[in-house]
Amino acid sequence: MTTSNSTLDQLSSSDEFIGRHIGPDATEQKAMLAELGVESLDQLVETTLPESIRLGRDLNMEDAVSEVDALAYLKKLEEKNTVNRSYIGMGYHGTHVPHVILRNVFENPGWYTAYTPYQPEISQGRLEGLLNFQQMVMDLSGMDLANASLLDEATAAAEAMALCKRSNKLKSNKFFVADDVHPQTLDVIKTRAEYFGWEVIVGNPATDLANHEVFGVQLQYPGTYGDVADLKSLVDAAKAQKAMVSVAADPLALILLKSPGELGADVVVGNTQRFGVPMGFGGPHAAYMASSEKLKRSVPGRIIGVSVDSNGNPALRLAMQTREQHIRRDKATSNICTAQALLANMAGFYAVYHGPQGLKRIAEKVLRLTSILAKGLELGGVKRSNATFFDCVTVEGIDQAAVNARALAKGCNLRLIADGRISINLDETSELSDVADLLEIVLGADHGVEVASLEAQVNGNSGFAAELRRDDNILSHPIFNTHHSESEMMRYLKKLENKDYSLVHGMIPLGSCTMKLNAAAEMMPVTWNGFSNMHPFAPRDQAEGYMEMIRELEAGLAEITGYDAVCMQPNSGAQGEYAGLLAIRKYQEANGEGHRTICLIPSSAHGTNPASAAMMGMKVVVVKCDESGNIDVADLYEKAEQHKENLSCLIITYPSTHGVYEESVVDICAKIHEYGGQVYLDGANMNAQVGLTTPGFIGSDVSHLNLHKTFAIPHGGGGPGMGPIGVKKHLAPFVAGHAVSKPEWATEGNGAVAAAPYGSASILLITWMYVKMLGKVGLKKSTEVAVLNANYLASKLAPHYEVLYRGRNGRVAHECIIDIRPLKEATGVSEEDIAKRLMDYGFHAPTMSFPVAGTLMIEPTESEPKAELDRFIEAMVKIRGEIDQVVAGEWPADNNPLCKAPHTMVDITGEWNRPYSREVAVFPTAATRDSKYWPTANRVDNTYGDRHFICSCPSIEEYMED
Amino acid sequence: MTTSNSTLDQLSSSDEFIGRHIGPDATEQKAMLAELGVESLDQLVETTLPESIRLGRDLNMEDAVSEVDALAYLKKLEEKNTVNRSYIGMGYHGTHVPHVILRNVFENPGWYTAYTPYQPEISQGRLEGLLNFQQMVMDLSGMDLANASLLDEATAAAEAMALCKRSNKLKSNKFFVADDVHPQTLDVIKTRAEYFGWEVIVGNPATDLANHEVFGVQLQYPGTYGDVADLKSLVDAAKAQKAMVSVAADPLALILLKSPGELGADVVVGNTQRFGVPMGFGGPHAAYMASSEKLKRSVPGRIIGVSVDSNGNPALRLAMQTREQHIRRDKATSNICTAQALLANMAGFYAVYHGPQGLKRIAEKVLRLTSILAKGLELGGVKRSNATFFDCVTVEGIDQAAVNARALAKGCNLRLIADGRISINLDETSELSDVADLLEIVLGADHGVEVASLEAQVNGNSGFAAELRRDDNILSHPIFNTHHSESEMMRYLKKLENKDYSLVHGMIPLGSCTMKLNAAAEMMPVTWNGFSNMHPFAPRDQAEGYMEMIRELEAGLAEITGYDAVCMQPNSGAQGEYAGLLAIRKYQEANGEGHRTICLIPSSAHGTNPASAAMMGMKVVVVKCDESGNIDVADLYEKAEQHKENLSCLIITYPSTHGVYEESVVDICAKIHEYGGQVYLDGANMNAQVGLTTPGFIGSDVSHLNLHKTFAIPHGGGGPGMGPIGVKKHLAPFVAGHAVSKPEWATEGNGAVAAAPYGSASILLITWMYVKMLGKVGLKKSTEVAVLNANYLASKLAPHYEVLYRGRNGRVAHECIIDIRPLKEATGVSEEDIAKRLMDYGFHAPTMSFPVAGTLMIEPTESEPKAELDRFIEAMVKIRGEIDQVVAGEWPADNNPLCKAPHTMVDITGEWNRPYSREVAVFPTAATRDSKYWPTANRVDNTYGDRHFICSCPSIEEYMED
Repeated sequence: MTTSNSTLDQLSSSDEFIGRHIGPDATEQKAMLAELGVESLDQLVETTLPESIRLGRDLNMEDAVSEVDALAYLKKLEEKNTVNRSYIGMGYHGTHVPHVILRNVFENPGWYTAYTPYQPEISQGRLEGLLNFQQMVMDLSGMDLANASLLDEATAAAEAMALCKRSNKLKSNKFFVADDVHPQTLDVIKTRAEYFGWEVIVGNPATDLANHEVFGVQLQYPGTYGDVADLKSLVDAAKAQKAMVSVAADPLALILLKSPGELGADVVVGNTQRFGVPMGFGGPHAAYMASSEKLKRSVPGRIIGVSVDSNGNPALRLAMQTREQHIRRDKATSNICTAQALLANMAGFYAVYHGPQGLKRIAEKVLRLTSILAKGLELGGVKRSNATFFDCVTVEGIDQAAVNARALAKGCNLRLIADGRISINLDETSELSDVADLLEIVLGADHGVEVASLEAQVNGNSGFAAELRRDDNILSHPIFNTHHSESEMMRYLKKLENKDYSLVHGMIPLGSCTMKLNAAAEMMPVTWNGFSNMHPFAPRDQAEGYMEMIRELEAGLAEITGYDAVCMQPNSGAQGEYAGLLAIRKYQEANGEGHRTICLIPSSAHGTNPASAAMMGMKVVVVKCDESGNIDVADLYEKAEQHKENLSCLIITYPSTHGVYEESVVDICAKIHEYGGQVYLDGANMNAQVGLTTPGFIGSDVSHLNLHKTFAIPHGGGGPGMGPIGVKKHLAPFVAGHAVSKPEWATEGNGAVAAAPYGSASILLITWMYVKMLGKVGLKKSTEVAVLNANYLASKLAPHYEVLYRGRNGRVAHECIIDIRPLKEATGVSEEDIAKRLMDYGFHAPTMSFPVAGTLMIEPTESEPKAELDRFIEAMVKIRGEIDQVVAGEWPADNNPLCKAPHTMVDITGEWNRPYSREVAVFPTAATRDSKYWPTANRVDNTYGDRHFICSCPSIEEYMED
Repeated sequence: MTTSNSTLDQLSSSDEFIGRHIGPDATEQKAMLAELGVESLDQLVETTLPESIRLGRDLNMEDAVSEVDALAYLKKLEEKNTVNRSYIGMGYHGTHVPHVILRNVFENPGWYTAYTPYQPEISQGRLEGLLNFQQMVMDLSGMDLANASLLDEATAAAEAMALCKRSNKLKSNKFFVADDVHPQTLDVIKTRAEYFGWEVIVGNPATDLANHEVFGVQLQYPGTYGDVADLKSLVDAAKAQKAMVSVAADPLALILLKSPGELGADVVVGNTQRFGVPMGFGGPHAAYMASSEKLKRSVPGRIIGVSVDSNGNPALRLAMQTREQHIRRDKATSNICTAQALLANMAGFYAVYHGPQGLKRIAEKVLRLTSILAKGLELGGVKRSNATFFDCVTVEGIDQAAVNARALAKGCNLRLIADGRISINLDETSELSDVADLLEIVLGADHGVEVASLEAQVNGNSGFAAELRRDDNILSHPIFNTHHSESEMMRYLKKLENKDYSLVHGMIPLGSCTMKLNAAAEMMPVTWNGFSNMHPFAPRDQAEGYMEMIRELEAGLAEITGYDAVCMQPNSGAQGEYAGLLAIRKYQEANGEGHRTICLIPSSAHGTNPASAAMMGMKVVVVKCDESGNIDVADLYEKAEQHKENLSCLIITYPSTHGVYEESVVDICAKIHEYGGQVYLDGANMNAQVGLTTPGFIGSDVSHLNLHKTFAIPHGGGGPGMGPIGVKKHLAPFVAGHAVSKPEWATEGNGAVAAAPYGSASILLITWMYVKMLGKVGLKKSTEVAVLNANYLASKLAPHYEVLYRGRNGRVAHECIIDIRPLKEATGVSEEDIAKRLMDYGFHAPTMSFPVAGTLMIEPTESEPKAELDRFIEAMVKIRGEIDQVVAGEWPADNNPLCKAPHTMVDITGEWNRPYSREVAVFPTAATRDSKYWPTANRVDNTYGDRHFICSCPSIEEYMED
């Protein structure tokens, strides 16, 4: 309480953000603690966490810093970055983010705080946006089918390789990669192939392909040095020997070039970054994958499909079964989970805004400028390596060092090739003045080439063979031809935004998908020029601001996790798992223990865990859970003992996916180590650990951190994510490297797991802000209040629903599972009915049927204020009352507000022959009358695959069938 | 059409913004032109505009520049600004804009594109925000009543003076201004008083007041040099001689100080800028005015009131009658129209977000730091002028030049007082490090005062008399005590946003209030640090970027208007009128023609016209209009002849407020000049002139430009606005100056009309962007398409509604009026019923009953695409059909979708006993089913005052009664 005698210290606002981030204030916390019969957060922690895991000290971190000071600090770091004009290319290009999209999507919480659209009735806006993206990709690639979306072009190519392997009956274990594929793509392909046991052959496809029997071929179109090769003949050659063909294609080039689909490709992948998404020092951007119809059940990633709702109206939804198809097996070849929804939406909107004519103008201009540059270089007497081109020229026989020095002096970055050549890539932002500068850079100041007259000497746009110019009608769908004025675009974006439930409407209480506040201040630096327009392969000395930020964040996350090193490369949680297991494998191999391939995984694990293990060539052995949801320690020890010779590791989630702090975790870690195994602790539930314990302290060796769960990166409506890993010292030499731009911490020669050295580097700023503004005290308190909020909910719901799992003193951790199975058995009302009915009450559904079928898992997070929790409790209690009315026969089992949920505006406007009133349907509480969120579809017809709602990856039970 | 042979020039995107700004594309324009029977825009113009006014040449302006290039240009100008730490004060202070408000309000089109809330059923969100603002002001000021809002503190004080004059029965014509009132406030008061014929006496109220009989007193609290005087004794002294007391009070100081209300003030005014609104080199920010209950019918400006809707539910609305009260007379003492709604909302939200405790913390910290500074200066041996203080110390006996040099060297701006003293003002952004720097600046580097130990020597917070510390309970309303976490605040802001209809939902076809696109790129620079954090009185050499931008914009607007000079000071349209008439008066006085006081105004004029004239001491003579809505030339000439000896000027709007290009305007101007008068051309309808003609070319001498109408500054839900004036050379020496910081163009010694030299300078950036990105071609084309859109609408509506006024060839200008009177007579369905029914169809109502009662005036602007126009036409035609159903007796006159409009969610959920269906009520078209905007109140109970809907100022007819 401020008084006139408060000291300056007490009047300081440096820790103000803590109270902004955490929902309940001190008074409310007190009331909630009382509900739990404890007096303080300390006491809550003491009575909830096992003593063995309690850290017993504060984190060794700085105090909280105010929003303004944190931003001022980053501003200084931004100034340490030098944003040169980038002609580096390699899949990352300058682009103009349309301002109407920047402001209304990228910087708008209505878009970026939405969750993955697993609940289609309240997600039709972004589903439509993603459908646009798919349509755009299909048009550009000339394929039958596209997903929305993959993490980056390199991992998309690795996924394509696996898709080829899955789909090709040929017995080959060899995969051919053209020698003009981007080097980072080759790097990731090699990493991925190694533990699948596939051989990667690199060569010139025109000459070398015939010498190998391969299951697949990866081409680049145009090639990394700029050539626009005769794709048709390469595809035909591959097809002739039954190899499948994946083409990594540049989306802007595809505006003018014949599509890979038309030329026979099986799979097309690429990065849509240059469609209006900033480079961001590596990301995030949306990669795409398109394929032929016959591969539709094998394509990885999320695909949006058109379905119908219960009233027969068209409605969009995730068509999940296509993904589950191939990761349900012990030999999973993909662990894809997070997509890049926000960025895919942006890229799709870029196409909507520009339309086919606008995109053609941009592409023709890039080609024209490249033609002029090529002509200038030719007149200047410099030899070009690439006979054909779209946006890139590669020159040889030049003094690379001298040219580069001139480039840097002009604030330009070129691509320096190891063999002495230089590549120059133009893009949407290029003008004739760039060409003039580039000629001076390459030819020297006195080059004598008259820039102004060059265009006249260029004969139309003909960088590539005339027969490669596409003549089909692309982007002809009305959506790409109606929103070209800014008013229309703005209204379209707002219309879609307002269809979707996001954190701006209320809580999204998803178990294990921590949907906390994404503060405005955290988001702001992401779009600052000095961060957003940095090429990932820019000379490292130009990225000093980024490097400082990353080093600080690494140090912070190392302290928070109790690990010795942090690797920022993985750009999703599943990618992090993969990178962590990779480090374990490499470590064990280095110790002569490459035979250790058994991976123990509890049955309650996230579905990505076994998939990632399978991708590392591990054999998954499932460990049972006991009735309280804890790992069955006896079963674990028995299986560890049984496999001790070959035990590679245990993957464990803590607190368990059942939302409980297990007592035995420290012992378990010790036991695994005894057997020579490593412990991988899945960081999905870090929000119950930060400041109270650490994975390192608990005894594990490696973890990934879902920065988009615990560390405030927004979900973006289904991505981006970031999944850096923390490791103990012995694993540090084995974390991912990068063939083009080695991360500071990486051992020379280690392969990459993602396209960019620091993954989606720009959104690390969000986590940096989060850590900085909460500081030591706020980080810990956030965890405490997350636990308080969950226990308060559990306590208030317990009289009405059975809370399935509890730990010591009857406490849950940061989430709680309520069991709907008994209710369902007695009444027929299902967990899905409750989830959908919650929409009518103005809430996003909790997690359904994960980790246990027939349950709801609720995680409120620390950011939800007591009023919002009470509103949720009110809804759940009222719904319980509605169930009772069904039981009592007041409403028939097939005609009641639960089974008919959610209700739309259209429902209550038309005929009404139901035993409950319209008011009951849509205004069940006073809060809904004050502020109504309207689902825009009735219940969407789900297929089998959608019933297993498990944060987008399949249930572990599938593995137990083996 | 882009082809592979398009030239680089054709492929350039430099004019892309033209197509983004203008709604209909080339194909659509063609179709619309065909509807009008013409083949091109040129032909449309030829057949619509009188030949005499056609410019016959292109504007002498630059070509269009792309969004990216325009922003890059401004970025360079931004870098030419030096944003020092400002300790200047004088009503402008550093503040932290809460990021959640910055992102979700200031940078969000959902907030900034809304119109003034004249249609309360679709404006409840911002009305609630403004009510918060009023409540905050009432709490802080201790008064019964507050408005929302005025333009700046200086004009608010001038309004307070007029309010005192209106309300005080004392016969005095003298007004006393304390000598510690901010100088710019005094400047504006003096300007304003001059033509009212009031004498301004400046003195020390404690000693001089007793010597004068005055109708009012203006005090400053705290004083401009920092003193927190004993307000009570001053108020008592004034009261003792029946003077009314206006207090200009700092809102942050009022957190701690006894309120002026408690101490007996009649009126309290002030600037709420430091409540989270950037300084912006002068604005925009919201000034406030609060008063006692007994003045409620006299208070100027917009007041939000609580009323009920037709279902008896509480609903907010503008309580307009209080304003009309005092400007309906020939002797108007206010012409207030535009408010600062967006900024008032921001300031109110700042209080909502911080709450009483947060604000107290901020205020106590400022006071504490000031105490520490004062102590340090005392120890350093420097004499302080002000015995008491809140946030400001004024020091004397120092070497002003040396101190200032040290300040500038440290990047600090102090207030330099002409008598050699220096004032230092602290604010929310100040820290102890500022105090350390300031001590070094004032005392010199070797001052020997130990900063760290100073706080201990300060005895609590006691800069002012203990009895002045307030002890009442402020901001105790729940709204200020529940939204303190960012999640809650974000949701509250989004909830309010989504209640309100804005341009993000569809068109706002308001006649004479041009609601065009406010492009994202135009808005972006406003919040850039280099522009937003500049103090208006910063040394001019630090504002070189601003000055260049302003000079360029002046030149552009001069060319667009055909004038010789432009004055940027007036911060609203009405203020511009005032400034323009002031220039005329001063010019005539300088020529010995001060007796010319007759002002001719056509009956179709905006209500502010006569009010502004009256405020200049002019006598308004109303000129009739003929049946086609044109000025009755005969009547005009007769009255001009009749008053020729005393004719000051004619105020005319062109095209007329009837939306027609009058043929006689050039002759009229000539005739007025013949009689020795000047012509003031109201710029409200500039959107029908730009690029086709100019006021200067037409023959007028001065105009104001509503930058928030024609030049893309958003309406902000009721302000800000900007009303710069253009003048011919002879008037240029007479435009407004500024006592503190003279504008470059101003004649030394000219008085100010607004608080800041360049008005709300930061939003000039929006207009700069608009002009730059459209260029010569785009500006003209915008006007042409505005005329095309209006004529297309008129043509399509004509079979269903009578179009009231037309010019040559049956054409309207940029807007059209449809006459509802015959329909109303025949059916009882009123223009209001149609306006409200349009809400059900997803539209904002057109202007009702201005300039002719019983009509609707529709202005689509060039930014509306054909699809939106067609949607509007469909709605209007369907509504016509609904009227026919009433006529046919299918629906009773008192129970039909028109008289019951608008319909809410609640309506259709409850009982339904109406002769029309719910579908007809709320989903009358397919478009509404696709995207429904919901009014959140039923028809709000309007009082007499609201029936005269005339862009917030009263009808000219009132004047004719005289």
